[in-house]
Amino acid sequence: MRNLLFTIEYDGSRYHGWQRQPDLPTVQGTLEKAMTRLFAIPVEIQGTSRTDAGVHALGQRASFSGDFGIPTDRILFALNNMLPEDIRVTEVREMPEGFHARHDARGKTYRYQIKNSPDRNVFDRNYYYHIREPLDVPAMQEAARFLTGTHDFKGFQASGGEEKPSTVRTIHGLEVTGEGPVVTITVTGDGFLYNMVRIITGTLVEVGLGRRKPGEIRDVLASGDRSRAGHTAPPQGLALVRVYYDEQEMAR
Amino acid sequence: MRNLLFTIEYDGSRYHGWQRQPDLPTVQGTLEKAMTRLFAIPVEIQGTSRTDAGVHALGQRASFSGDFGIPTDRILFALNNMLPEDIRVTEVREMPEGFHARHDARGKTYRYQIKNSPDRNVFDRNYYYHIREPLDVPAMQEAARFLTGTHDFKGFQASGGEEKPSTVRTIHGLEVTGEGPVVTITVTGDGFLYNMVRIITGTLVEVGLGRRKPGEIRDVLASGDRSRAGHTAPPQGLALVRVYYDEQEMAR
Repeated sequence: MRNLLFTIEYDGSRYHGWQRQPDLPTVQGTLEKAMTRLFAIPVEIQGTSRTDAGVHALGQRASFSGDFGIPTDRILFALNNMLPEDIRVTEVREMPEGFHARHDARGKTYRYQIKNSPDRNVFDRNYYYHIREPLDVPAMQEAARFLTGTHDFKGFQASGGEEKPSTVRTIHGLEVTGEGPVVTITVTGDGFLYNMVRIITGTLVEVGLGRRKPGEIRDVLASGDRSRAGHTAPPQGLALVRVYYDEQEMAR
Repeated sequence: MRNLLFTIEYDGSRYHGWQRQPDLPTVQGTLEKAMTRLFAIPVEIQGTSRTDAGVHALGQRASFSGDFGIPTDRILFALNNMLPEDIRVTEVREMPEGFHARHDARGKTYRYQIKNSPDRNVFDRNYYYHIREPLDVPAMQEAARFLTGTHDFKGFQASGGEEKPSTVRTIHGLEVTGEGPVVTITVTGDGFLYNMVRIITGTLVEVGLGRRKPGEIRDVLASGDRSRAGHTAPPQGLALVRVYYDEQEMAR
């Protein structure tokens, strides 16, 4: 029995999200089909994050354990040859028995990209949230400080996700940076509720547009009321950057 | 009778090139369908450049003359509302009677983008020519100087294009720049033969990889022999940047 951990990069534009669905192209479904063919046994993988339709990944993780012939060091090349151009496995690693890509994850980093420019161009449509009016980045940075730390993020959760026993999460870092017309939000935390990063982004955008004061974020958090947080930013700006299995790695 | 000149931006990834084809999605076909609906008359437009499948445009041009009701200043907004996300009209201008987007063009600028990096990522696949081995940019710049000016570019023409009476063309500028892992080739000329920019790029890449000496370019030009020039670089790195109707505009 070998237990493998895969690191996966994908452009989510063409997919109905990560999670396998009958008759719809998904990232998990595409990977499982290729692995089933390569390993010559039925394959079901466990992904760390169920990214939504249109969301990308630089470092999604997935695990699989089973008995099959191909040596571990030959899987990367063989699998990438069978995958479409918009999904690529960047690492394959053997893990101890019982390891699970989702249950054992200690945290994740997501990145959200905004193009803040009066002009829109066709090349950004799958990778940026386009915002025409100028964003006040320092105000967004001030608001971000209120979200950092351990809080009940009930108000920053969309309905429709998997029920979780607790809505308390710890955000280790929430950085807002502006470079030319690109505003990037980078967030690292021990776990995220359904659509939490997109709702945080939508709320920060409303602060950046001057529609909310940075200090309001405290009240929104305290209320636990979804209707008081901001809009859900669109999926295409979001990418899962990294998954951590080691607390120390995440602190760096 | 109004004669209109359109400036058009598109992501060519999804299209079988510019030119209208029965039963295949093309940029011209998509634009004509939207205009036919908007103007309520059958529309056939004249594009400046017949870009190949996968080639992009920041500033393609096309003209159309006809009688129709909608005021010129309302076309841009209405048309963009009817077009898919990967095609966008950026300007609509009234031109004198008899103006033709292709016949009246005095020159064009194309840009070719190379990602020169040992690692490949899924997000570049539609927009860069990926080259793993390091490119010698100064050698490419030296080779580019031999191509600048007025030459017979017969050896830099692919078969299969429209027959042209002469293969002499003038390249006003051919710049190779490196910025981080991105190598960009920008070329401005009075006209280009079929696949000429992609063959120039392929030849410069071979110089950059040390497989040819910069000085060889002179002999390739003099020979007029396609088999002595380099390979045709793939379409996705190429974008039509601008079309000039005025010699002075091009010289700037």
